Amino acid sequence: MSQAGAASHCITGEINDRFVATRALSEALAAPLSDADATIQSMDDASPTKWHLAHTTWFWETFLLRDHVPDYRLWREDWPFLFNSYYEAEGARLARPSRGMLSRPTLAEIVEWRTHVTSAMTPLLDDPALAPLIELGIAHEQQHQELLLTDIKHALFQSPMGPAMWEAPGAVQLDPVDAITWLAHPGGIAMIGHDGGGFAFDNEGPRHRVLLEPFALADRLVTNGEWQEFIDDGGYRNVAVWLSDGWAWVQAEGIGAPLYWREGDHFTHSGWQPRNPHAPVTHISYYEADAFATWAGARLPTEFEWEAMAQRNDPDAGNQLDGAGPPLPTGGKSFFGDCWQFTRSAYLPYPRFRPAEGAVGEYNGKFMSGQVVLRGASCATVRGHSRASYRNFFYPHQRWQFTGLRLAKDA
Amino acid sequence: MSQAGAASHCITGEINDRFVATRALSEALAAPLSDADATIQSMDDASPTKWHLAHTTWFWETFLLRDHVPDYRLWREDWPFLFNSYYEAEGARLARPSRGMLSRPTLAEIVEWRTHVTSAMTPLLDDPALAPLIELGIAHEQQHQELLLTDIKHALFQSPMGPAMWEAPGAVQLDPVDAITWLAHPGGIAMIGHDGGGFAFDNEGPRHRVLLEPFALADRLVTNGEWQEFIDDGGYRNVAVWLSDGWAWVQAEGIGAPLYWREGDHFTHSGWQPRNPHAPVTHISYYEADAFATWAGARLPTEFEWEAMAQRNDPDAGNQLDGAGPPLPTGGKSFFGDCWQFTRSAYLPYPRFRPAEGAVGEYNGKFMSGQVVLRGASCATVRGHSRASYRNFFYPHQRWQFTGLRLAKDA
Amino acid sequence: MSQAGAASHCITGEINDRFVATRALSEALAAPLSDADATIQSMDDASPTKWHLAHTTWFWETFLLRDHVPDYRLWREDWPFLFNSYYEAEGARLARPSRGMLSRPTLAEIVEWRTHVTSAMTPLLDDPALAPLIELGIAHEQQHQELLLTDIKHALFQSPMGPAMWEAPGAVQLDPVDAITWLAHPGGIAMIGHDGGGFAFDNEGPRHRVLLEPFALADRLVTNGEWQEFIDDGGYRNVAVWLSDGWAWVQAEGIGAPLYWREGDHFTHSGWQPRNPHAPVTHISYYEADAFATWAGARLPTEFEWEAMAQRNDPDAGNQLDGAGPPLPTGGKSFFGDCWQFTRSAYLPYPRFRPAEGAVGEYNGKFMSGQVVLRGASCATVRGHSRASYRNFFYPHQRWQFTGLRLAKDA
Amino acid sequence: MSQAGAASHCITGEINDRFVATRALSEALAAPLSDADATIQSMDDASPTKWHLAHTTWFWETFLLRDHVPDYRLWREDWPFLFNSYYEAEGARLARPSRGMLSRPTLAEIVEWRTHVTSAMTPLLDDPALAPLIELGIAHEQQHQELLLTDIKHALFQSPMGPAMWEAPGAVQLDPVDAITWLAHPGGIAMIGHDGGGFAFDNEGPRHRVLLEPFALADRLVTNGEWQEFIDDGGYRNVAVWLSDGWAWVQAEGIGAPLYWREGDHFTHSGWQPRNPHAPVTHISYYEADAFATWAGARLPTEFEWEAMAQRNDPDAGNQLDGAGPPLPTGGKSFFGDCWQFTRSAYLPYPRFRPAEGAVGEYNGKFMSGQVVLRGASCATVRGHSRASYRNFFYPHQRWQFTGLRLAKDA
Repeated sequence: MSQAGAASHCITGEINDRFVATRALSEALAAPLSDADATIQSMDDASPTKWHLAHTTWFWETFLLRDHVPDYRLWREDWPFLFNSYYEAEGARLARPSRGMLSRPTLAEIVEWRTHVTSAMTPLLDDPALAPLIELGIAHEQQHQELLLTDIKHALFQSPMGPAMWEAPGAVQLDPVDAITWLAHPGGIAMIGHDGGGFAFDNEGPRHRVLLEPFALADRLVTNGEWQEFIDDGGYRNVAVWLSDGWAWVQAEGIGAPLYWREGDHFTHSGWQPRNPHAPVTHISYYEADAFATWAGARLPTEFEWEAMAQRNDPDAGNQLDGAGPPLPTGGKSFFGDCWQFTRSAYLPYPRFRPAEGAVGEYNGKFMSGQVVLRGASCATVRGHSRASYRNFFYPHQRWQFTGLRLAKDA
Repeated sequence: MSQAGAASHCITGEINDRFVATRALSEALAAPLSDADATIQSMDDASPTKWHLAHTTWFWETFLLRDHVPDYRLWREDWPFLFNSYYEAEGARLARPSRGMLSRPTLAEIVEWRTHVTSAMTPLLDDPALAPLIELGIAHEQQHQELLLTDIKHALFQSPMGPAMWEAPGAVQLDPVDAITWLAHPGGIAMIGHDGGGFAFDNEGPRHRVLLEPFALADRLVTNGEWQEFIDDGGYRNVAVWLSDGWAWVQAEGIGAPLYWREGDHFTHSGWQPRNPHAPVTHISYYEADAFATWAGARLPTEFEWEAMAQRNDPDAGNQLDGAGPPLPTGGKSFFGDCWQFTRSAYLPYPRFRPAEGAVGEYNGKFMSGQVVLRGASCATVRGHSRASYRNFFYPHQRWQFTGLRLAKDA
Repeated sequence: MSQAGAASHCITGEINDRFVATRALSEALAAPLSDADATIQSMDDASPTKWHLAHTTWFWETFLLRDHVPDYRLWREDWPFLFNSYYEAEGARLARPSRGMLSRPTLAEIVEWRTHVTSAMTPLLDDPALAPLIELGIAHEQQHQELLLTDIKHALFQSPMGPAMWEAPGAVQLDPVDAITWLAHPGGIAMIGHDGGGFAFDNEGPRHRVLLEPFALADRLVTNGEWQEFIDDGGYRNVAVWLSDGWAWVQAEGIGAPLYWREGDHFTHSGWQPRNPHAPVTHISYYEADAFATWAGARLPTEFEWEAMAQRNDPDAGNQLDGAGPPLPTGGKSFFGDCWQFTRSAYLPYPRFRPAEGAVGEYNGKFMSGQVVLRGASCATVRGHSRASYRNFFYPHQRWQFTGLRLAKDA
Repeated sequence: MSQAGAASHCITGEINDRFVATRALSEALAAPLSDADATIQSMDDASPTKWHLAHTTWFWETFLLRDHVPDYRLWREDWPFLFNSYYEAEGARLARPSRGMLSRPTLAEIVEWRTHVTSAMTPLLDDPALAPLIELGIAHEQQHQELLLTDIKHALFQSPMGPAMWEAPGAVQLDPVDAITWLAHPGGIAMIGHDGGGFAFDNEGPRHRVLLEPFALADRLVTNGEWQEFIDDGGYRNVAVWLSDGWAWVQAEGIGAPLYWREGDHFTHSGWQPRNPHAPVTHISYYEADAFATWAGARLPTEFEWEAMAQRNDPDAGNQLDGAGPPLPTGGKSFFGDCWQFTRSAYLPYPRFRPAEGAVGEYNGKFMSGQVVLRGASCATVRGHSRASYRNFFYPHQRWQFTGLRLAKDA
């Protein structure tokens, strides 16, 4: 499922190599776009490409250059107002719905700023004391690379012309998927959260114990073909399988299919393309994922079940299950890289969680209400960015991300 | 804190006594109200008194009389359309915001229907096979007794006249509260959920194990006086203590105090009355509760922490902590009866939860998204209705219920 | 068309007789209603019956008793806040959408106030200096009598029970209407506006000259049967006959028939009743009236054309047409009394119009934007209240009044 | 007041010269803008520059080339869907709020289309049978030139950067204005509407008689300095001078000054510039204009008063006043060219008005509800486009056009 482009890149190596590669990747993703393409904003939830390129640059200038390079002068005094996202500690900022009004500065001017800031970062890259902040900056920019891709997809979708930002890859002949094999887990006490090796966001810790009942996860994601069966069976009109909020959303918005579906096609970064029934379904909301699982006689996994199973399938992750058996033979198949996978877990702090001090402490903690956790990674996630403890989160009605689902059941 | 009236009633005894007493209490609560009082609806979240009286009667008629009394004829053929709340399996129904348009039927006609239905229930009360459904009906009506009280309070509050539905009780001289004593819990594996003795809602089970880290709960609720300190310290204007959604809510709605506060007074069922600084603060949203806890250097408890501690303070509840020590000397002081207490837990199904078959299965499960769990009971909860495993739930912005908070911290 | 009740009353005679009769009529109209009926408010545009009874009483107390009876004490100090409608000069007042929250004071308390105020007015009724203000008060109360009827109709309509406030009159057998006869007018300079004899609102003057081109008016109103033809011909789906704003309204609101239509029935003060095809169509918006006229190859009249023609048919009105011929033989048939008749004229001030000084000057002038003029009178207008110069006005989307149309064409 | 650019161009001469010059002017106006500038849309009422360039080209292609050039092939089959504005007869079209999503086609592609269409029009320009339609097309494109300027001004205003699209002209030293001189008119029967010489829109006719009472108009527009006096006198907080709808608008939107005012500056096409107190005030709504006039003890003119006076000051217009005297010595000073001038007249059809047949008949008639008439022309109106009978129209709350006012009074 190569709808998006970040996934084909794998960013590894030393921190300074990864810094440079990450900066370059952002620019490469925007390369097929005109200044106008990079300016438009299709909804409040999304941001223009140009804004993502600038905001990630603001991050480096604000938290690294300004604070750690003596006498550093801001590139433009008034740009922080434009490109701060939500950091209250960093002052007032442009209202989010107005980001699409920034025809100025131009894309070329933003890229010029990027070049300057990337270069200005050089002396800081070898400072071990700054490594944690630089790792955060890299991870932050990688997150915006994924958002850049999902946001521009939504923007291009608005046009009845069905514009493409790159050629469709040669047709991939996907084999029919097999029936689901259930990966059983015996339950017990699992260690959840990041184990401290390598970078992680603050919301992935502290690592702690969670008691699991026996359960099983599907060995693969739900496919477009299976989703079509749900539609054909009247799934969107059958109130009995929906959460109350989900049913209200379906009624109010007139929902009857995943976002971007149109007859046998779906909208991609290469415009309208035939939909492959064997590919994982994507661009669904939590409400839809939950309804499908109910219809299928299954349920969504908790984020802890997901992580515990992902650890078994990712022996390098360094996580340990308490009393669990050896990794399953089917390995980590599709745990990472196709779609973010909905869990039924609300996005809440782990025991003893404390946000970091200062503005960067606004990164995660303040969003811990009303959202649901998604695990894994998508085709738009840069390789190397994902890990078993990674917690993504969105509101239950949102579906412009590459979201899918893996079924779970009680064992 | 005797703002409301249900709490002073204690309904116990055999099932038929409790049925009759519950039916009578609903009518007693409405007794101070005119037909017009009982008709008005102040917001979509609330329902008219008359509607509560009728809906609880519809419940008995629909799920007991219609299904279990041979040849039972509905009192009025068209009333189920008016008084079904949200049971999709029971067919179409009046849109919720239109409940306030029902000047007909009159309050007297509803009471006449109530009398008929209460009487018609007599032959069913001794049928052991129906006891679970009757227990559900009693619990259901008790829930609506609390809603009746909170909804009419909100309705009367809309009038600038400050109307009262009963006389203010003689001034209760509350002693100043002591500083918080922290009730420590060693953590470990706790049994959570209803143990099967007596009635419980389906969402209280299945009983299952939860692993807790060591923690401590405050021995009492946060008071009006402490909340005033939060206000005086600029709590409502300090973005740093708010969840992101909470801050957006505060800004959009212009929130600066709990609902019903006005200078030194607060609105009660007896109209505007002086506010007692030593009484628990109430009518706050989840966002406010969370912000206060952050401001106070504490946090909200999880629902599991709350239940585990409540069990220690309620030895009769039949719940057992795995390896926990003896009940704390301070007992269950204020665990039940003042205010519903916010937890930081999202309202989600317990492991292996399955909704009941049929329409009554719509009671709880379909609401398991977007809401937070509150524990305990309030001054408006009928005595005997609450228990340690009870899970109440509301959206994070709602605050017309008697909601308060108890602080928690890591041990 | 006896849907409403005010029309059957004719209030004439000396000012004090008319005052007493008007006060009594308001109470008679509310007599079939319970306190709860009189409390509910179905939309922001409408007010509760109780509020109309109180507001008209506030008018007398505020503008007559308070200002002209020495030492008059307000009945309740806080009621003016509740029952002022929109008179900014009279201070703050309850927000309009909250009028439906006034279960207190009760209907009986309002009637008690009414009795007191009616009685207290007695000494003022013979004061010639106050006669203009008293005439205004009578006319004001008569306007609210019509609103009371249209507002309670809309409120009762909200209930799926189809409640009635009085028995349906015995079936009136209406004869089929004849084809339209066009009443021709030669044009010329007409005198428009009230001529100074008897009471008129300030917006009916100053009397002034208007130049008319030759035109013709239909001798009767459009009927339900003709409207059905419009529907059957796809009128509501044919964009070509609609004003742009009207088409947007039809689409947004899903309009496909007059308000209160349901299959062959329509909702009345006597509940759902069969619709008579020969009766004038009513409860239509300006947009609908305009679309019908376009569909019919005709147009709506201007308010000046209407008034000039009404004068010819109302020789007692004292108005004179410049150079016009004798009254037409068909007389004033249906110029007054069935439905208010839409004109294409915007509600604007006449040349040299000046609002009255003080609070009563807020009666008309400040509403002179965005509304359209209706002429005539309806079945809910009290007899004696209407005249050829009378200008009623509503927004183009509103249709809860008894609104209809008479076609016009160029001669 | 050279804020905008169209005004400095004067397009005269033969029809083919005017066609070519008009096409060229549209492109010249957009020349300072990037593709991104030309893509953004700041509100539903406004359109992107690119869209104006394309829509005016669609007009020629649809109504001239497609219908009158044998075998003409549309440039792109799917562009009519994008660039039809509101012509229902021409089929479905992109929703107006989505115009800002058209990053494709690019500005360069639109200009290429323009060149093609301009060239393709050559053989039609000499066909006398098409002259009326070509004149309509020229007038249509000129209207969009003004909208292009007002829309891009609003778009650039959204950016906190205060971007400019051209250099500020050298400071113009405006002399202080004199006190208003009142231009008296004796009243009588005036001929209103276009007299048939040269092009006019259908809404300017039919020419007809209107009876005027004696009146006077100010000899100049209200200035920024006078508007500042209104503000300083509390005009925006004084409910007594506002129409009811206007007051509601002021409250809801928090209005306290004309659009684009900020302290002593105002926003222009050259960014933020000092405001000249002697220049006419502009960017006000009808509500503001009416409130100012009331505050000043005057009123707004009717559109008929304005036209009658403009004729006296424009003896070449070919219009004749019935019995009026010679032109006033102060001439047509500022009747055209500074700001569109609000009248108190609603936008309604003249007697015997009939829209044209076919799609072009949707040009004017269907907008004749809810809007007010403005007369004159603005600094953004191309020279040669305005005339005494010209009727512009907007909703009473809109103020992104160059709108101002001239006071009137009864004589």
